Amino acid sequence: MSLEFQIHHTDGAARRATMRLPHAAVETPVFMPVGTVASVKALPQHFLEELDARIILGNTYHLYLRPGHELVRRMGGLHRFMSWDRAMLTDSGGFQVFSLNELRKVKEDGVEFRSHLDGSKHFFSPEHSMEVQIALGADICMAFDECTEYPADYARARQSLDITLRWAERSKKYFDEHRHERPWDLHIPGVEDRGMNHSGTGLRGEGPDGFAGLQPNLFGIVQGGMYKDLRRESAERLVEMDFPGYAIGGLSVGEPRNLTLEVIAETLPYLPKDKPRYVMGVGFPDEIVEYAKMGVDMMDCVLPTRAARHGMLFTSEGRLNMKNKQFAEDQGPVDPECDCPTCRRYTRAYLRHLMVAHEPLAATLNTLHNLAFYLRTMEKVRAQIAAAKSDAGTAAAPAAG
Amino acid sequence: MSLEFQIHHTDGAARRATMRLPHAAVETPVFMPVGTVASVKALPQHFLEELDARIILGNTYHLYLRPGHELVRRMGGLHRFMSWDRAMLTDSGGFQVFSLNELRKVKEDGVEFRSHLDGSKHFFSPEHSMEVQIALGADICMAFDECTEYPADYARARQSLDITLRWAERSKKYFDEHRHERPWDLHIPGVEDRGMNHSGTGLRGEGPDGFAGLQPNLFGIVQGGMYKDLRRESAERLVEMDFPGYAIGGLSVGEPRNLTLEVIAETLPYLPKDKPRYVMGVGFPDEIVEYAKMGVDMMDCVLPTRAARHGMLFTSEGRLNMKNKQFAEDQGPVDPECDCPTCRRYTRAYLRHLMVAHEPLAATLNTLHNLAFYLRTMEKVRAQIAAAKSDAGTAAAPAAG
Repeated sequence: MSLEFQIHHTDGAARRATMRLPHAAVETPVFMPVGTVASVKALPQHFLEELDARIILGNTYHLYLRPGHELVRRMGGLHRFMSWDRAMLTDSGGFQVFSLNELRKVKEDGVEFRSHLDGSKHFFSPEHSMEVQIALGADICMAFDECTEYPADYARARQSLDITLRWAERSKKYFDEHRHERPWDLHIPGVEDRGMNHSGTGLRGEGPDGFAGLQPNLFGIVQGGMYKDLRRESAERLVEMDFPGYAIGGLSVGEPRNLTLEVIAETLPYLPKDKPRYVMGVGFPDEIVEYAKMGVDMMDCVLPTRAARHGMLFTSEGRLNMKNKQFAEDQGPVDPECDCPTCRRYTRAYLRHLMVAHEPLAATLNTLHNLAFYLRTMEKVRAQIAAAKSDAGTAAAPAAG
Repeated sequence: MSLEFQIHHTDGAARRATMRLPHAAVETPVFMPVGTVASVKALPQHFLEELDARIILGNTYHLYLRPGHELVRRMGGLHRFMSWDRAMLTDSGGFQVFSLNELRKVKEDGVEFRSHLDGSKHFFSPEHSMEVQIALGADICMAFDECTEYPADYARARQSLDITLRWAERSKKYFDEHRHERPWDLHIPGVEDRGMNHSGTGLRGEGPDGFAGLQPNLFGIVQGGMYKDLRRESAERLVEMDFPGYAIGGLSVGEPRNLTLEVIAETLPYLPKDKPRYVMGVGFPDEIVEYAKMGVDMMDCVLPTRAARHGMLFTSEGRLNMKNKQFAEDQGPVDPECDCPTCRRYTRAYLRHLMVAHEPLAATLNTLHNLAFYLRTMEKVRAQIAAAKSDAGTAAAPAAG
């Protein structure tokens, strides 16, 4: 069993669950910080542990280019490479490759693209995406999909969905045959434990058998543009393939926010209730609360980390632009209701100064606060669902072997 | 008493002492990390505490321009502003102003200069430098001096020294009359303790009387170019003025390293044995060890922090350029003999990746290591002096009232 999804409470469509992964027990609904190139930008790993983050993301496209998946595999996988012993999820590379626009060419077999770093030519197929992700060694990998652009007419969305479904089958076939190749048990003489065993939170590989019998998991991705019938078809055909979890992709691609909500609402009913449901690339704090209440279990977004680097902070009193002169002598914390290391120690006046003076510490302290805000937001949602008292009993739903 | 310098051991000219300042007890010989604009670049303050740094530097010129000394004064001083409750030293602004070259004009009264940020016109006199430094509120302030350029002929060095001596007198006069204006006791209703009392190490203001009776200290700066007789004259005339400590300035300005050593060796004998002696702007690890053994008590330099941001790390095995391909798969720590948070947790392979991928975390982890290396280097020097067993007894030497 490499993914157990145990629902403890429900409140309407919302669920409060524990997702047990090889490297950690993740309490859901969960927001996953994005660590693009093996680092949540500007944040030392111990801060993520202090915030009780249990799962973070890595971006397959970026890691494939730099430092390269073969190198990461030889280093014992992404967990060891970056010294993060809790859970990780990698995307398929699809979203980034499709963002390259002029630099890519889609064929039935896969996508040819040029690196944004040096223009060098590369090819990603479903099989190659799986190979790369297995080498990186995340707890959850994602099927290789085509992220349909917005707007896309019906014919285009249909064609895009079809290729995504064929790629999902190929992804699953390759993944099932190769997932045992994950690098978790690699023994590097003398240094195998460097950087590991920091947190111990639910680390299942810590037992006497290590990671024996534990494997990464592959999630399918629902596409279909903004068309209800295509989303339904996509969901139903993926469910037939029997993945341990499902993502709703192709959102946050420029569509209006009410459309995002509509597509999520229309798609969720076609996904199994007993498996984790993941909406990719969302969103603002009020959005992630709303989606969690609709029954979404997992979300990720670069917004809190990217906004932090630009000085935009999320607080219980709304958004603050820390560059504003109004904060120049403000001795209060960023958010009086926040107990993160930034709010406990530093003033708005100091953070404003760091932004204005272009000090690198601004990125670190701001990122710390925004992630704390997002993680606490989800913590409150989980508490609310649990408080609804509709105890789901011991209905453990093993989703993958 | 606002500075007590108690020598515990001597070993030849070297001394192992404790310098008690209003905000901390500093064990000397000490290396002081540079926090130019109210931040040791890329490093959250708690890491400095974890490394047991007791005193850091602020740069008056930079802080005067941004965020401005009046603002810092209103915020309760630099300690509170940046949440650093241990000791601080500010330079006089002289070194930075004189680095502006084309942008400055020296007159008897002071220096007119243009900001490197926006070209705006400013004027620094000895009195103004004191006013700014008292507003910033460091434990140790520095007399306003002209940093003589290198090379400078005898006549030029003589003239530069003369103005520095006149400015030293004016600095001292203004400082003595105004030092009680330091902002340490400022009460900001409801928020006065934000960001303070984190470390408690020797914080003398922690007592029931707060900082009552405690004042900042002013050090004189020896100039005189590379001329032995001018250095002697400079030292002797400053000693007559009776400062609680003395710095040797005008070094690390482009002269060869053996000349730096020579000037330090020739100047030290003219400085009082019972007061702290500070060489400004040095140096490489082997240099600071050498100077400490010659009897220097305090040193500062941007080298460990600046080099770190460029990927140059100091280790017990020599310098490493972390961008080098040879570290791409190196699973060892930066320095096997180092126990800093970077070396305890991360591999050379990961640090190399962060540098190559331009990840901001590289600056943080590298800076942490380099400062740990510098501080441990001084810790070892202190232990060596103490081990020499020439116990100086209880010869406390109160240096300033």
